[in-house]
Amino acid sequence: MTVTDEYLAHNAQYASTFKGPLPLPPSKHIAILACMDARLDVYRLLGINEGEAHVIRNAGGVATDDAIRSLAISQRLLGTREIMLIHHTDCGMLTFTDDEFKRAIHEEVGVKPPWAAEAFSDVAEAVKQSLRRIEHSLFVTKHVSVRGFVFDVATGKLAEVTL
Amino acid sequence: MTVTDEYLAHNAQYASTFKGPLPLPPSKHIAILACMDARLDVYRLLGINEGEAHVIRNAGGVATDDAIRSLAISQRLLGTREIMLIHHTDCGMLTFTDDEFKRAIHEEVGVKPPWAAEAFSDVAEAVKQSLRRIEHSLFVTKHVSVRGFVFDVATGKLAEVTL
Repeated sequence: MTVTDEYLAHNAQYASTFKGPLPLPPSKHIAILACMDARLDVYRLLGINEGEAHVIRNAGGVATDDAIRSLAISQRLLGTREIMLIHHTDCGMLTFTDDEFKRAIHEEVGVKPPWAAEAFSDVAEAVKQSLRRIEHSLFVTKHVSVRGFVFDVATGKLAEVTL
Repeated sequence: MTVTDEYLAHNAQYASTFKGPLPLPPSKHIAILACMDARLDVYRLLGINEGEAHVIRNAGGVATDDAIRSLAISQRLLGTREIMLIHHTDCGMLTFTDDEFKRAIHEEVGVKPPWAAEAFSDVAEAVKQSLRRIEHSLFVTKHVSVRGFVFDVATGKLAEVTL
C-alpha cells in the first residue's frame, strides 16, 4: 500500500462528515504565500477555517513568477486584499546553491533546468527579497497589506520581517 | 484590525502548545500539488500530519515550471517518491480565459504579463495535462507513483483521473 492509498482511505472518512459547498471567493479576502515544507500546516498555524484564504506554496515560499500569477488571479478575480508571506527556519533552500543543484541535474540528465532554483542563504533576507518582488510587481497591486514572516519550526511562532 | 493581525493572534495560541522541531525531510516521502483554493484544507482532507508531506499549491494546481522546480527539489534533495495532484470542482480557473485575463491587465497597467495564466475549461482534462507535464519532465523523475484527482467541493470526496 502506498502513502497515496493511505491518504485516499482517510479522504473517504473526511468526506463522510463533510459539509459543503462553501462559496468560491475567500471569505477573509486574504492570500498566504508559504514554503512547501512538511512542517508548516498553514491552516492550523494561522487558525484558518475552510473557505477563508487562498494558500499558495512552493519550494521556499518564494515570490516567483508563478506565485505572482497566483496572487494576480487571487486579487483580480477573487478579491483578496491582504498577503501574508511565510518562510521558516531550517529551510531546505538554505542547504544548496542554484549552481550546485542545476549542475547535478545537468550531469545526470544532460539538460540544465532553464529556471532558477531560488536557493537562498539567509531566511530574513529571502523574505525581504520576496516582499520587494511583490512590491514592484505590475500585476499584484490590489492589496492593502503585505507582510512577511519567518515561522520557527522549533517553537511554532511567527516572527515578522520588515523591509 | 486586519485578518493578518487576527491570524497572528491565533499563531500565539498555536505556539503555546507546539511540539517541535520535526526533521526536515517529509517522513512519508510524498509531495502533494494542489490548487490554492480556500476550500481545500489539504492536510485535513488527506489526513496529513505535520512533517509528513510537501504541499505545493498554486492557482489551479497546475504543473507549471515553478511546480516542477518545487517537485525537483522535493525529490532530489528531500527524497519524496510519490506525487498526488489535486484539482477540484467549481475552480476559479474555469471562469476566464488566458486572453481575457491578460488583456484586462494590459489595458489597466499597460504591460501584458509574460506568463501564461493557465486557465482551463475542463477540470479532468486539466489534471491529465498536468500529469503529462510531470510524466514528460526531465527534472522530476524519481517518483514511483504519480496520480491525479478531482476534489468535489460539495461532497469532500476525491475522484481519480487517469490518463
